[in-house]
Amino acid sequence: MSTTVTIRFEPEGRKVKVKSGLNIFEIAKKVGVKIRSECGGEGSCGKCRVVVEDQSGLTEVSENELQLIKPKDLGRGYRLACRAMVNDDIVVFVPPESRVGVRKIQVEGMERPVELDPVVKKVHLMLSKPSVDDMEPDFDRLAASLQKRGLNQPEIDHELLRALPDVLRDAEWNITATVWNNKRIISVEKGNTSNVIYGFSVDIGTSKIVGYLVDLTSGDVISIRSLENPQMVFGEDIISRVYYAMSDKEASKRLQEMTIGTINKLITEACQETNINPNKIYEVTVVGNTVMHHLFLGIQLKYLALAPYVPTIKRPIDIKAGSLKIETNPHANVHVLPVIAGFVGADAIADILATGIHETDEMCLLMDIGTNGEVLVGNREDIVACSCAAGPAFEDMHIKHGMKAATGAIEKLKINPDTWEVKYETIDGAKPVGICGSGIIDAVAEMFRCAIIDQDGRFSKNIRTPRLRHVNGKPEFIIAWKHETESDTDITISQKDIQEIQLAKAAMHTGAAILMEKKEVTEKDLDRVYIAGAFGRCLNAESARFIGLIPDVPSQKIAFVGNTAISGAKMALTSKEIRETAQKLSTNVRYVELAAAPSFHNEFLSSMFFPHRDMRKYPTVTKIISSARSQKSRNANQK
Amino acid sequence: MSTTVTIRFEPEGRKVKVKSGLNIFEIAKKVGVKIRSECGGEGSCGKCRVVVEDQSGLTEVSENELQLIKPKDLGRGYRLACRAMVNDDIVVFVPPESRVGVRKIQVEGMERPVELDPVVKKVHLMLSKPSVDDMEPDFDRLAASLQKRGLNQPEIDHELLRALPDVLRDAEWNITATVWNNKRIISVEKGNTSNVIYGFSVDIGTSKIVGYLVDLTSGDVISIRSLENPQMVFGEDIISRVYYAMSDKEASKRLQEMTIGTINKLITEACQETNINPNKIYEVTVVGNTVMHHLFLGIQLKYLALAPYVPTIKRPIDIKAGSLKIETNPHANVHVLPVIAGFVGADAIADILATGIHETDEMCLLMDIGTNGEVLVGNREDIVACSCAAGPAFEDMHIKHGMKAATGAIEKLKINPDTWEVKYETIDGAKPVGICGSGIIDAVAEMFRCAIIDQDGRFSKNIRTPRLRHVNGKPEFIIAWKHETESDTDITISQKDIQEIQLAKAAMHTGAAILMEKKEVTEKDLDRVYIAGAFGRCLNAESARFIGLIPDVPSQKIAFVGNTAISGAKMALTSKEIRETAQKLSTNVRYVELAAAPSFHNEFLSSMFFPHRDMRKYPTVTKIISSARSQKSRNANQK
Repeated sequence: MSTTVTIRFEPEGRKVKVKSGLNIFEIAKKVGVKIRSECGGEGSCGKCRVVVEDQSGLTEVSENELQLIKPKDLGRGYRLACRAMVNDDIVVFVPPESRVGVRKIQVEGMERPVELDPVVKKVHLMLSKPSVDDMEPDFDRLAASLQKRGLNQPEIDHELLRALPDVLRDAEWNITATVWNNKRIISVEKGNTSNVIYGFSVDIGTSKIVGYLVDLTSGDVISIRSLENPQMVFGEDIISRVYYAMSDKEASKRLQEMTIGTINKLITEACQETNINPNKIYEVTVVGNTVMHHLFLGIQLKYLALAPYVPTIKRPIDIKAGSLKIETNPHANVHVLPVIAGFVGADAIADILATGIHETDEMCLLMDIGTNGEVLVGNREDIVACSCAAGPAFEDMHIKHGMKAATGAIEKLKINPDTWEVKYETIDGAKPVGICGSGIIDAVAEMFRCAIIDQDGRFSKNIRTPRLRHVNGKPEFIIAWKHETESDTDITISQKDIQEIQLAKAAMHTGAAILMEKKEVTEKDLDRVYIAGAFGRCLNAESARFIGLIPDVPSQKIAFVGNTAISGAKMALTSKEIRETAQKLSTNVRYVELAAAPSFHNEFLSSMFFPHRDMRKYPTVTKIISSARSQKSRNANQK
Repeated sequence: MSTTVTIRFEPEGRKVKVKSGLNIFEIAKKVGVKIRSECGGEGSCGKCRVVVEDQSGLTEVSENELQLIKPKDLGRGYRLACRAMVNDDIVVFVPPESRVGVRKIQVEGMERPVELDPVVKKVHLMLSKPSVDDMEPDFDRLAASLQKRGLNQPEIDHELLRALPDVLRDAEWNITATVWNNKRIISVEKGNTSNVIYGFSVDIGTSKIVGYLVDLTSGDVISIRSLENPQMVFGEDIISRVYYAMSDKEASKRLQEMTIGTINKLITEACQETNINPNKIYEVTVVGNTVMHHLFLGIQLKYLALAPYVPTIKRPIDIKAGSLKIETNPHANVHVLPVIAGFVGADAIADILATGIHETDEMCLLMDIGTNGEVLVGNREDIVACSCAAGPAFEDMHIKHGMKAATGAIEKLKINPDTWEVKYETIDGAKPVGICGSGIIDAVAEMFRCAIIDQDGRFSKNIRTPRLRHVNGKPEFIIAWKHETESDTDITISQKDIQEIQLAKAAMHTGAAILMEKKEVTEKDLDRVYIAGAFGRCLNAESARFIGLIPDVPSQKIAFVGNTAISGAKMALTSKEIRETAQKLSTNVRYVELAAAPSFHNEFLSSMFFPHRDMRKYPTVTKIISSARSQKSRNANQK
């Protein structure tokens, strides 16, 4: 006879009333408390350990628990959640080692919700045992059972087929099959492991490779890892890598191996962090710009680098992890998202997927700011895209005192237009070490606002302050005096730093301008501006607009969406439909070759100015500057 | 201005009238004279050499011919058929090295005509060259071009994709793609090679492995090769090999490697014989009994060998040649035909395909006689099947003077019932060396007809002739005296030889009897009896019926169909539809486990008799014997 009992889960304090006789693992599942398990509640993996101090409400310690829990831990109240049945009210403490997906996830990119429908699915099957009256072959038996679950004519990898007879008998015909794309059996495991299914998404950025480990039963990201792209040693920008890859026959193979090596490191780290067996990762999605895409697949770059810049393939590709030496389950499928054109890759497709600009009536501009930036303009009717060789300036490189967004990085600053004094904020409030991306944009914007530099980026000759000094005849502006800094060095912005920013922002702006020209829209017609890229997250919108990196639109129209490339990759991991959309986008998005646009050269030169040679394009900035300038002259007159 | 010219091809003497200006290669194609070519008439392979003595009707020797034909041969009238244009009447001699498929083919098995529709097809494509106005990626360009030819969404092997950019440019966008099953590109070649497409069919018999090299442009078999199955060293019968395979972990792998090694030898030999590049073989079909099937695929035999004798898979399998180390084009597909049950394999399916018993209303019995024999009974409505462990006696093994059907083998014989003198025929009329399968059946049948042996196979005690002698107390009958033989040894049939034949024929007959019982038909209901197996080809039907190997049906109902297993494999190579039929058959044909039939034991013992314990089943034989016996007693009385 079952009664109602109350269970409280700690440390969340979540309470639930259920009928007695269920085990803790089942109850936890019902209320969304996630407890690790590899055997799916069969009492064999020993991963679902929980602590119950007063065990009077629980059934006796079982045989499996005696085997899987050390006597010392049993004494401290440890039980296996899947073996301990609840008969009376209890308090369950879920220790950190048994928790899944509860750590606070650092969201790295905007993402639209998608219905969870991954391409890999697990199906628990209890097969009938063969007998003289039922001599169905092993595979056909498995296939028939899957057919009842709606899977017609599944295929199987040859190696799995060879192992199948032993696996089925060892499992006593109680198995879980992992099926890819409703057509290919990629794993057969003993018992019910249907709640142990993971996927991994990768964004191969020019500078960084980011990986998400995703629980495919929930769609939750349970680990985020990133590492520097190891190809960096062959050049920070993409063109130097292309040249390196073309330099000798083995080079592109070497770059491929390095890239895959780093992806494997991300997988290992993510799995170690969450205590998950990499063998339980059954699907991988990969995005990257077209060069990264080709390098990842080991495809030569020669024809991508030479006119007319034709990629080898643009449609999506599915390859076995084992054949790429990706260290997940060897039968896992690696899905490489499609690219758009020679220099607009799967990352741009991911940007679209994550922001949904292909589904809205609003006219959108998307700028994915990075070493190899992309710009997209359009909406549900039509999208145009281009790539912009911005270089790594926004990612703190080629900037004398540039640094990553780490402790001690100046991330925000203001300059007093009267005294030229600088007020800055550093990450973690530490003594300054250098300037990170957002700090550099702020610095340049402020220097321009305060007329320390002119519209063409040159240092003003009229400023008199100890902060503006000349070293070897070259001007630089001191952001932080050496006595303030951790490194005991003045942190400065030089003329060269300004130029790097000018080149980078001009590249991005030119892309946006030419695409808007193609679409016959102006800044006024834009309903929404998305700023993507890891860098975009901490960017000060006003500063970015001030220097002309982004167009002059009201702040409420601007959204900083972070690393949407990885978000798109994750969406394609959790949703089959998203993959189909991606494929359509790769065909439908129109690529624009900037260099071929008649206005390119002129627009680029105009975009080098702060915010632009044609100030009419930046009415807000114009207004601020003229009011600042007049205020200043008023102040000067009063003195 | 074109006129009409007459060309005669030698040595066939085939004449044709065509308009002038065509080259010899094109003309030959029109009239069905097959000339070898690998480049498809591009003038680059140099394989289409022909001899034209009076060259006044031809265009001048071209650049390509100067490069590809030695000056000496040019002097003798050699030309490249694809380069020499015909302007006036000529006589063309096609030398042996340039001929395709004209050698007299030894047809090895009955085969039904099928419409030529192989699963691999070649498509010649002239792709447009990329330009700034047409930046379609390489693969997508190829796919779009194939789509126009009705191939939607083709896939491509990763390795081919990597090579694609160079291949396309090297070929100047004039290429031939090989497409598997309308969905996968397995090769991309320079120029038009659409008439260079071959396939290979393999029958893995327990004793012999047979291979057919097939020209897939015509469906013609252009080379037949066979080799002993190298697994023979681990036992002549299938059960010893199963035990060996189970003996240690590596054994089945070793057997797989040996089998594939032999198949590779067959491929090499066939290609050398016909001067064809193995890389031009794009598809392989394989049949074999279930044990051979599993060994070929490297699947363990443990569960096939233990009750309830369940195979690992029965449905058809497609694997890349490269992954099996089959030395054709590495991207070729290997199609392994489906099996029916534990001991009835793809060879039985091939038997059905080749004879068409699944499409007729006639009630058919098919006996595939071999070491591991199969029997099938049925028609379009329903077919039942079983396997019979006949052992290798019919294949000349376990027989003291048994030998292969080679020069000097006694293949036919008659015994005079009065004098016991033997009249035999040997292969090539040579001095006898031993007895081949058909000779053994003849010998046993004749010995029984002449009452040298009794119905139960024992030597008669009433015969007085020097030909019947005892060695170490054991009787034997001398077929050929030592002075007649090549080996200077008496060629004899011993009691043990008789027993081997009894066991083998009883196994086959029991299978037929039990299946007929299942189908509720008798000998009278049989409309057709097919005798298959390489051995069956030279069998004397009357002798086979006389000893009770085959049922007592009129000779006109019996057809010897040879090695139908390889015929079926070849049909599946040339016809996609046949593969679909094979798959249906593997599910629909009902397997009967002989040992489980209640009448098995009794039937087997009865079948050990000549022709059977129940003489009513053999009215024709009974009649011959009684007339022979009464004739003999009349003769004796007259003496």
